[in-house]
This record gives sequence, C-alpha cells and structure tokens, in this order.
Amino acid sequence: MTDVVIAGIGQTEVGEHWDVSLRELAFYAIEAAMADAGGLRPQALFVGNMVSPLLSNQAHLGALIADFAGLNGIEALTLEAAGASGGVALRVGYMAVASGQADVALVVGVEKISDQVGTPVEAALATSGDSDYEAVQGITPNAQAALLMRRYLHEFDAPREAFGGFPLIAHANGAGNPKAMFRKAINADTYNKAGMVSDPLNMFDVAPVADGAAAILLTRAELLPPGFPHPLVRIAGSSMVTDTLSLHDRPDPLVFHAARLSVEKACQQARITPAQVDLFELYDAYSIYAALSLEAAGFAARGQAWKLVQNGQLALGGSMPILTMGGLKARGNPGGATGVYQAVEAVLQLRGQAGKNQVVGARRAMVQSLGGPASSAVTHILEVNPA
Amino acid sequence: MTDVVIAGIGQTEVGEHWDVSLRELAFYAIEAAMADAGGLRPQALFVGNMVSPLLSNQAHLGALIADFAGLNGIEALTLEAAGASGGVALRVGYMAVASGQADVALVVGVEKISDQVGTPVEAALATSGDSDYEAVQGITPNAQAALLMRRYLHEFDAPREAFGGFPLIAHANGAGNPKAMFRKAINADTYNKAGMVSDPLNMFDVAPVADGAAAILLTRAELLPPGFPHPLVRIAGSSMVTDTLSLHDRPDPLVFHAARLSVEKACQQARITPAQVDLFELYDAYSIYAALSLEAAGFAARGQAWKLVQNGQLALGGSMPILTMGGLKARGNPGGATGVYQAVEAVLQLRGQAGKNQVVGARRAMVQSLGGPASSAVTHILEVNPA
Repeated sequence: MTDVVIAGIGQTEVGEHWDVSLRELAFYAIEAAMADAGGLRPQALFVGNMVSPLLSNQAHLGALIADFAGLNGIEALTLEAAGASGGVALRVGYMAVASGQADVALVVGVEKISDQVGTPVEAALATSGDSDYEAVQGITPNAQAALLMRRYLHEFDAPREAFGGFPLIAHANGAGNPKAMFRKAINADTYNKAGMVSDPLNMFDVAPVADGAAAILLTRAELLPPGFPHPLVRIAGSSMVTDTLSLHDRPDPLVFHAARLSVEKACQQARITPAQVDLFELYDAYSIYAALSLEAAGFAARGQAWKLVQNGQLALGGSMPILTMGGLKARGNPGGATGVYQAVEAVLQLRGQAGKNQVVGARRAMVQSLGGPASSAVTHILEVNPA
Repeated sequence: MTDVVIAGIGQTEVGEHWDVSLRELAFYAIEAAMADAGGLRPQALFVGNMVSPLLSNQAHLGALIADFAGLNGIEALTLEAAGASGGVALRVGYMAVASGQADVALVVGVEKISDQVGTPVEAALATSGDSDYEAVQGITPNAQAALLMRRYLHEFDAPREAFGGFPLIAHANGAGNPKAMFRKAINADTYNKAGMVSDPLNMFDVAPVADGAAAILLTRAELLPPGFPHPLVRIAGSSMVTDTLSLHDRPDPLVFHAARLSVEKACQQARITPAQVDLFELYDAYSIYAALSLEAAGFAARGQAWKLVQNGQLALGGSMPILTMGGLKARGNPGGATGVYQAVEAVLQLRGQAGKNQVVGARRAMVQSLGGPASSAVTHILEVNPA
C-alpha cells in the first residue's frame, strides 16, 4: 500500500461567520492548506459537509468550491455521514491517493449554520437520525444524547457532576487555541450551575454548532516539494464502520460498537494498540459521547470513563490527552467540517506546532469522528516520521 | 493498479413507487446485486443520492441502508455531485477496491422523489445550481437547459425538430427494457406536438424524475466465487472532472468542457480512443445535454450532433448506439441513482444479457453521468474479458 502523507493543513476560526459565505470559508481553509504545502496543486477535492442543502439551499459543493478556489477542472465531490462527514472526506481522500487515482488530494470540511437559527437548524441536524422512526417523533440529536446520558447515570451510578470533567478539559484547552470558538477555561462551579438543554444534558454538555472550514492536502511522500518545511505526518491507519442508525435497534445503547470496531481496524492497519497513541482527538459533541468513546476505544472499562476524567489523565499533561485544542465543545462543532478540524489539530500536535497546547513528544495521534450516536464512526491513526 | 471487476448488478423498476420507502428501494437493488454476485459480502457501501435530505428529511443514508440491508457494521457513506452522484459513488467504490481498503465494495444509487410534487421538487433540484447566483433568480435546471438549447439553435442554425431524434431513440429502446419507466416508442409527430416545459424545451426533451435504486458489487477478479456465472466485466477507466457550477461563468456555454476532459482521462487510463467503444451510455437529462455530450466526447463536431442523430448511427443497430436501455428519458431519471443505472445497463450489454436491446458483439462501453450542465462529469470505461 502506498504511504499517504499530509502535505498541508489549513483552518478558519470557528464561530459565527455572519459576513462570510460557505464558499468563502472553504476557500480560506484551502488557501491556507495550499500555502502550508508549499504550492502543491491537487487533482481532486473531497468536500465533507452535512447540512448545506438544507440550510443554504446549496448542494453540488464539489464543483462550486473547486471553481471558487481557483481549481477549475479538477475532480470534486461531496461526502456525507452526518457528524462524521469530515472524517469520511479525509478517508476518501486517502483512498484516492492510495489507489493512484490522484497524486495530490485536497480534503475540505465546511459548514455554515449561523445563517439559520432555532427550528430549521434542529430539523436539519435531525435528518442525521432515522426520519421515519426518530425525527418524526421529535427526537433531535440533543434529546437522544440526553436519553443516553440518563441511561448511563442510571446504569452505572455515576454522579451527573462527573461529566463536567469533559467540558472542563475542552475549555481549558480551547483557551490556548487561537482558532477556537471559546477560549476561556471554566470551572466545576460554572458547569454545575449551567442551565439544562435537555435534562440531564446541560449547556456545557453540548458542543455548539458553528461555522468553519478546515482543509488537508494529501499526497505521496515522494511528491512533496523539495525543502518541505514541516515534520512529515503520515496516515498509518484509516477505517470507517457503521452501526444501526437508531439507538433503539441496539442490543446495548451504552456501547459505541462502531467506534470500537473502527478503532480496532485502524489500529490493526497501523500495527499498534490504542495505548500506543500519544493523544486521542475524540468526538465530544456531547459529554456522554466522550465517555462512551473512551470506553469503546478501551481506555476505560464499561461505565468507568467518568472516573478517568476526574484523575487528570486526560488533560494536556496526562497520560492520554484528549480534546487537545478544545474539542468540539470549545473549538466549536462546525458539522461536516469538524472531522477535518480534528485531523488538522492532530497534525499540529505531531509537527510540534500546537503552541501553548503542545503535547510534549507527541508522535502518534488517534482521531475519531462520529455521525449520530456512533451510527457512523471513522478513525485515523496519524504518525510523524522520526526527525 | 489492481483490476477492479463487476461481480454483481441489481436494479428496481424506475417509476413512481408510492408504496415503497427509500430504504426499501435500496434494499431491493442490493439484494438483487448480491444474488447476482453469488453471495459475496461487501465491507463497504457507497450510496449515491441527491435529494433525500431535502425531500425525505433523511441524511446519513450510509448507516441507514447498510443496517436495513442486513449489512450492519460495514463501512457506509453518501456521495453527492448532483446528477452525477451515482457515477461518483461508482468511482469511489472503485477507489476503495483499487486502494485495498475494501475487498468487496457495494455501490448503490437510490432516489425517492414521488413523495413530493411540484415546487418542493423543483426547489430541491435547483440546489444543484448556484444558490446565491442562479437559484435565487429562479433558475431551475429546466430553465437553464432551455437557455442552453435556445442558444444552440441560434448558434448553429439547427432546427428544433432535430432534437426529437434523441427522445425517439430513448423511447424506442425503453420499449425493450422491463425496468424502464416508459416502455413505448414515440414518433416524430408525437415529439413535435408535445407541450412546452420551458420553451424551446418540450415534454420529450426533459427526462422524468422518478424513484428507483440500482446497485453494483465491485471486487478484485481473484476474489470472485468459484463458478462465477457471468462474463467478467472490469472497470478499465474511471475519471471525474468539474467545470464552473454556473453556465454564466463559462467562456462558451455550448462546450461541455468537463465532459470532454473526463472522456479523455478515462480513455487514457483504458488506453483507447472514444471511437473504440461499442456503445455510449450518455446522460440525456435533456435532449440538449445528449447533443453536447456527443460533441464533447468527439463523436460529432461542434454544433453537429443534431445531424448525427438523424442518420441512424446512434440507434441500437448503428455504429455508436446510445441510451441502449432507454436512457434517462425513457428508463427514467431517479436523480442520484441514475449513474448506477447507466452502469448496470452497460454491464447487461457487455455480458450479453440485454435481451431485445442487445448490442451485438458489445465488448466495451463508455458510461457518463453529469451533474448540472456538465458542472460535474464522471466517465467510466467498462470492458468485458474475452470469453
């Protein structure tokens, strides 16, 4: 198999970009990634996006963004797997290079949500669940995560306050990320006093949807421009796995089975165990997702991740740092762009370019994006070559 | 590069499936393709779909369809490039197998449009154009094709009646396809008397949107089950190219530049010239698209395809048969499923399973799907191995 390497990364700030359109957001991220790569030109563009047809009346983003970014005539298409859309865009970009169908592939995740507020956004996000059996009953992603969290609290005698550990880490790390939507640490008191979104889910248990774009340029190592200025990060493992779309179809809703399988497959390809990664960019759309993702990856036993987050292991200086640039909670969750942001942040860590948030000596990262409650799970193992 | 072969094909009838849901349609096509392949089980599912989020409130089709089809736990995601969605699903399935990321990949195109009528459908289809510069002005795909056809008539002194040649071929061939939406030949008189949809586009110049699903199972030749019962068809060339999303951004709107480049690249990979294919499944969403596609592929000079269609060359017994199973016009145009139908039909021809519509001695087919006015173009060259 061809070794696929990351030649360039780019990202916009995450937030409410009232004055910037979807195509412009994508362009800014692409421009940054191409500059970072020293001018490599892609033959193919893979766009991760979730709700543009619903919130911006705009499908067919491949041709739109390719042309707007000055890449007229290249291959370009859109990938969707709900919240995992950015992750699958990276995965298909990887396949394009690994198969020899593209020498250089550009992956961009982009989302523009702020143009709409309230019900249209909730309805658009609910299309990621089962329309005929869930959304039609009024089950939005928030409501579903609340059911999952309540079940977890009941099943494992976990205190609700323990979940505050996840947003506390996220916000502590977001404070050091200049691209993050929220750059202010919070404390346990702030978490405990926050208003409920959907009981027992409070405001800090839910990552904010937002606008943003992130981009990654992939190629084969031998095609890098001479004097490539960064430590070289390669994709050592890549996998994508699905589960039932609906929670109610699962034998045990408190097991993120697809996340577990996806970690296993990606690690198998990379010939490592999960314990051999130096950081884990997990998908904390909700605090409960963070807990279940840690358990699925084997970092905590079933029902025990809430203990792990209390003891400091998951913080920047800990043994398995998570959400190192703020995670979905503090960096923000720009839907189909999120998976690409996660990978860009992991690359910054592996290159030693993560500034105040640098995980010292980070050589290998696991990056995981989820669609729905791990109905889709995509996992990448990124490794930096020895200097 | 690994040789990627077609192990199984399946399709539902195209039409108005009032009593069948989107997931069921997909399941029927998958079931047929898996039976046709003698029981190969895929590791990955690539879904081509265009408007499900808009018309069925359902995104995240990968996980939904994989689970509903009894394939829980496999990789699954959605691909979109407007009308070329089915074509890009096939292309990404090809990349998955060629890259070694899947031994067996399942490609399904599915669309359910009949549940909605009138404005919602037009609005959904218009998301394939530029929302900020076209759709907002009321430019629907029909209106845009009408502008294109009017310009062609003006520029090349072509008689409007000449365009009837395309739907006449389509309907003549649809009569022999048991899966086609319309199975009745029409004559020039019927065409000339048809009411206008958007002058100069009449009812027979516009392919009907419809419901349907088609599926293809891809693998490597060495993984085929023993005693594989069909002549073996392989993907000899695959390419995808974009152009400006908007017609008004092109130096010459009467050249389908992306279609031309895509044919060149696919033929280059297959080491053939377009003249060496035995049939051309082109994308006749509109008669004018058929004409411009023939010119882009080099089968007619600029402004001359309307003459080609008069002389019988494009009919089943001619030198370059097109729309051999009815094309979009008579088989029907189930949006994101269409590209997979086109490929399934080409496989039937190459295996000698096309019944009354068999192109005698067909060994090589070119299949092309377009998104918008060739804003996206994906082309595959399929070849059957010598017996």
